[in-house]
Amino acid sequence: MAVLNVDLADRSYPIYIDGGLLRNEALIREHIVGSEVMVITDEVVAPLYLDNLLSILGGLRVQNKILPIGEEVKCMETVSMLFDGMLDARCSRYVTVIALGGGVVGDIAGFVAACYQRGVPFLQIPTTLLSQVDSSVGGKTGVNHPLGKNMIGAFYQPRCVIADLDTLQTLESRQVSAGIAEIVKYGLIRDAGFFSWLSENIDGLLACDQACLEHAITVSCKIKSELVSLDERETSSRVLLNLGHTFGHAIETELGFDEWLHGEAIAAGMVLASKMSERLGWLCSNDVAAICDLLARAKLPLRAPSGMTANDFLRHMSRDKKVSDDRIRLVLLKSIGSAELISDYPDHILTEILNEL
Amino acid sequence: MAVLNVDLADRSYPIYIDGGLLRNEALIREHIVGSEVMVITDEVVAPLYLDNLLSILGGLRVQNKILPIGEEVKCMETVSMLFDGMLDARCSRYVTVIALGGGVVGDIAGFVAACYQRGVPFLQIPTTLLSQVDSSVGGKTGVNHPLGKNMIGAFYQPRCVIADLDTLQTLESRQVSAGIAEIVKYGLIRDAGFFSWLSENIDGLLACDQACLEHAITVSCKIKSELVSLDERETSSRVLLNLGHTFGHAIETELGFDEWLHGEAIAAGMVLASKMSERLGWLCSNDVAAICDLLARAKLPLRAPSGMTANDFLRHMSRDKKVSDDRIRLVLLKSIGSAELISDYPDHILTEILNEL
Repeated sequence: MAVLNVDLADRSYPIYIDGGLLRNEALIREHIVGSEVMVITDEVVAPLYLDNLLSILGGLRVQNKILPIGEEVKCMETVSMLFDGMLDARCSRYVTVIALGGGVVGDIAGFVAACYQRGVPFLQIPTTLLSQVDSSVGGKTGVNHPLGKNMIGAFYQPRCVIADLDTLQTLESRQVSAGIAEIVKYGLIRDAGFFSWLSENIDGLLACDQACLEHAITVSCKIKSELVSLDERETSSRVLLNLGHTFGHAIETELGFDEWLHGEAIAAGMVLASKMSERLGWLCSNDVAAICDLLARAKLPLRAPSGMTANDFLRHMSRDKKVSDDRIRLVLLKSIGSAELISDYPDHILTEILNEL
Repeated sequence: MAVLNVDLADRSYPIYIDGGLLRNEALIREHIVGSEVMVITDEVVAPLYLDNLLSILGGLRVQNKILPIGEEVKCMETVSMLFDGMLDARCSRYVTVIALGGGVVGDIAGFVAACYQRGVPFLQIPTTLLSQVDSSVGGKTGVNHPLGKNMIGAFYQPRCVIADLDTLQTLESRQVSAGIAEIVKYGLIRDAGFFSWLSENIDGLLACDQACLEHAITVSCKIKSELVSLDERETSSRVLLNLGHTFGHAIETELGFDEWLHGEAIAAGMVLASKMSERLGWLCSNDVAAICDLLARAKLPLRAPSGMTANDFLRHMSRDKKVSDDRIRLVLLKSIGSAELISDYPDHILTEILNEL
């Protein structure tokens, strides 16, 4: 079992990565505080893993709530409904909230844990590749607003992250590809060697080879925990984790959140960021080709949705959380393995890149 | 000017206490981050102080929102409405939220600041005695739920608290008394000498004598900051600040939140806690008489509302945030100046105290 640590003083916590963890009663119960548990999951994950989890929580007072699937559920109404249910069930401030599912479940459950009676203990059990390598680590929780993704939320760290590799065997291939997009991101922003490893092992990853997955998830979580430990609230280096995200969020907002998967939008966004980095003289054309080649082999989109214009992008991007003094700031690549937050690019270059779509 | 410090590592902040602070442009602007401000206030405070505040924020992009008065506005719907307005106005994650008003405004504005784009800078400018001595300090933010007070919220610290004593001169006398209830609380839980001082200076306080107010507010904020610095998230000693609150919240929930002021409910609650402390052998009857005498001179209620039964109390108290393993835990007095969280009292004593109402 790989064990990583997110180093945040009194909010530090471990990430466990291995097969079979959902059957590891001692490990899971070790992180539950008190005698009450609220499991939040969704309609796809519940039939697969909920009974398993409940069976090892014997003797505790356990509630559960099964959410519909889809990004639409990630809204304030769902959060209010969960608060109502927890208060009706008389959950105390010592209840432990467990997120069992993908990124949507984790983001909602984490925000509920952050705000229920001003914060209760919280465990992440991510069951998708994307949530295991990204959203379950680092304490970003929250919901969407009609005017933008993740606009309402909190930084709230879990007590642990339990990534059971076995749960990835039931994923659809499109979900695996979406997770790979975030994995590629880590190579691009921080680790050129890992980017090369990915280029050599992409087929193993797509086939959900256990050893490949364990390596890719461990390296990804290690890079993420380092950046989160340095900058929990994203005032500096953590922002690099947003490579491709300003473009990607614009795609998600334009299409509605359930059309493209988050990882798919981020892949197209990373291509745009790479092309812009090339135009600014930092990447060479071979670098951009290697990035596009890897994402294409991972069965990810390289282009924005047809019909989406530069103006569509700019309209959504102007609401991005990284906008400062009305300037759209972008994470761009100085080279493969090294990223920077850039605000002093010539505007026409951004417009030209978007017009080339 | 008295300046206290709430000592919370990278979340430490100053409390400024003096007359004329709302005209101190340099002091207020020093704590504003970036160029955007969102002022949240209410219908009573806005006509008195909003123009004053806006006049010293020249050159910044300032929005404001004036809430109706009353505890009913402290709900998720108001929070959602404020999020909508801020997103519509394109407030970025660098907007500074300013709470200008009493406890209700501060609790709502603080929670909005905690959750808008996962947290933006926040200033407290409390304009009531109760909010200056209690709710503006310590980072408790949140809203009520039909099933209980302050059930949804966050611990989120302001960047500073600016307590302008001049604003207290416009308070109704009932509001002054309500603030005195929380001031008496500090003497009871932590400082017998301050309790004696209050007994000698209660008339000066009621008359809003500036020197009396400054001393009482400074001592109160000092005790509160010490307890908050020791235990930000109320896992141990901070709970002592809840003397009288478990009983008081039951009164507020039973009556609806706008019938009695918070301080009035807490006064009656402190009398119940004192009587229970006497029954357990910790206070003598003279202590209880001195407490009742001081609260009566402060024009505060000593008894629960007529018609409210022991069962009414127990029903509401069983939902208190301090309930653990179905046990109602109470902050009681070992002596005047010393409090403890107690769970191992004989149940019949609580019932008898409540039946004596």
